[in-house]
Amino acid sequence: MIVKQLEKTIIEPKITLVGAGPGDPDLLTLKGVKALNTANVVLYDALVNEALLNYAPENAIKVYVGKRSGDESFSQELVNKLMIDYALNYGHVVRLKSGDPFVFARGYEEIDVAESYSIPTEIVPGVSSALGVPGLQKIPMVYGTLSESFWVVTGTNAAGEISQDLHVAAKSNATIVVLMGVEKIKEIASIFKAEGKANLPVAVIENGSSAKENVVVGVVETIEELIIEKNISSPALLVFGNVVSLHPQFNAIKEFYAILEREEY
Amino acid sequence: MIVKQLEKTIIEPKITLVGAGPGDPDLLTLKGVKALNTANVVLYDALVNEALLNYAPENAIKVYVGKRSGDESFSQELVNKLMIDYALNYGHVVRLKSGDPFVFARGYEEIDVAESYSIPTEIVPGVSSALGVPGLQKIPMVYGTLSESFWVVTGTNAAGEISQDLHVAAKSNATIVVLMGVEKIKEIASIFKAEGKANLPVAVIENGSSAKENVVVGVVETIEELIIEKNISSPALLVFGNVVSLHPQFNAIKEFYAILEREEY
Repeated sequence: MIVKQLEKTIIEPKITLVGAGPGDPDLLTLKGVKALNTANVVLYDALVNEALLNYAPENAIKVYVGKRSGDESFSQELVNKLMIDYALNYGHVVRLKSGDPFVFARGYEEIDVAESYSIPTEIVPGVSSALGVPGLQKIPMVYGTLSESFWVVTGTNAAGEISQDLHVAAKSNATIVVLMGVEKIKEIASIFKAEGKANLPVAVIENGSSAKENVVVGVVETIEELIIEKNISSPALLVFGNVVSLHPQFNAIKEFYAILEREEY
Repeated sequence: MIVKQLEKTIIEPKITLVGAGPGDPDLLTLKGVKALNTANVVLYDALVNEALLNYAPENAIKVYVGKRSGDESFSQELVNKLMIDYALNYGHVVRLKSGDPFVFARGYEEIDVAESYSIPTEIVPGVSSALGVPGLQKIPMVYGTLSESFWVVTGTNAAGEISQDLHVAAKSNATIVVLMGVEKIKEIASIFKAEGKANLPVAVIENGSSAKENVVVGVVETIEELIIEKNISSPALLVFGNVVSLHPQFNAIKEFYAILEREEY
């Protein structure tokens, strides 16, 4: 009896960062399910599908820690504090993050702070929205001569600005995926236009992999107008590149541009 | 009785491309498990963990279709033919591919050929090795001011060459992941050296996410020697970028370089 009580008081802190995938709860990995199965506490982001919380034990503590960008009610500092506090007092904390923990999700910051407290950490990679969301739309990252590489850039860096890398990316032949960029579409489109790429195909995918998914396909020149017309807002990602021309919705546009070109004669 | 026999002869062809993840069978998604559960046929690549075949029904046909690069015993043309043939004759074909189906896995070619036969297709994204394997080593794709973007490039394109995009990538500040490039490390390192990046941190990860995982960390200048010394061969991926300096093995190197710099005085 005394031994049992002693056992109960030994807390073994551990923090597991789990990538929840882009939204569809079935895009969680088996390893993610196993981590949740043994969680004492789950700290989850706004974009995470709450259905996933059912994989955690019923008596586990589930704590919502807000949006990962924009909403400042949960600062990274506060999330770090909660994570350490729960790990030290309750044991296994699963930090459930949208997409993959290391793709614009500040996962390394969390690993770093955990290690500064000598708390063991583990990573469970997830399906990144950057690749998985276009993939579900059958837009490949690379394809034959259309693209031999892909580049994932943020539209909103730590300073709240478009990454400078996008200026270099726009010069390249890579498929370019811009996360957290839909609100800055005017500025982003102008970066591509400055490189003479007004006719480069673009796809915008809102709420990818969920029932509310919404897709718009166009070219750099028209994409801002289309986003306004279709009332697209974040969470949404942008895909720039010739691979977007493989999307079935692009056929109609191809014909439209062909007509315009003929009229010019 | 007659109705039953009729039912048995109605074949509903369908092809599902499933990303198996980097190697650890637990990195398959729940959606991937569900697709395998209903497979009549599974066509699987060399790098796919065979443990995953247990998710398919016992009586499902399981066909090995070889390596995705190098080994030419199974050409893409032959894989396409098998896939169509099995779908038309047996129903649901799961095409189980290493990593994600659209990251250097020729997934779109397979979707394209399936659609030319009016066979319905579905994509189940997977954890791409490009992100997941460095992630398991706690190397993030982006981090604070070290990197605001990442670029995934092939070391072996359709022509068997290093993608020209790598020359542009080496000029950028992105974290650069090179897949299928370890055999061309000399040439790849020289591309970075030409950009004055001899001291850029590099990680090489062989058999990522498996029990045989092997990691080497160095800088552009020393990486070829390290690969030879540690006897690293494919499948392996290369990560170039300052984020690699966050890897625990990099500390020793940092000190080594610091000593060298002092000796120069």
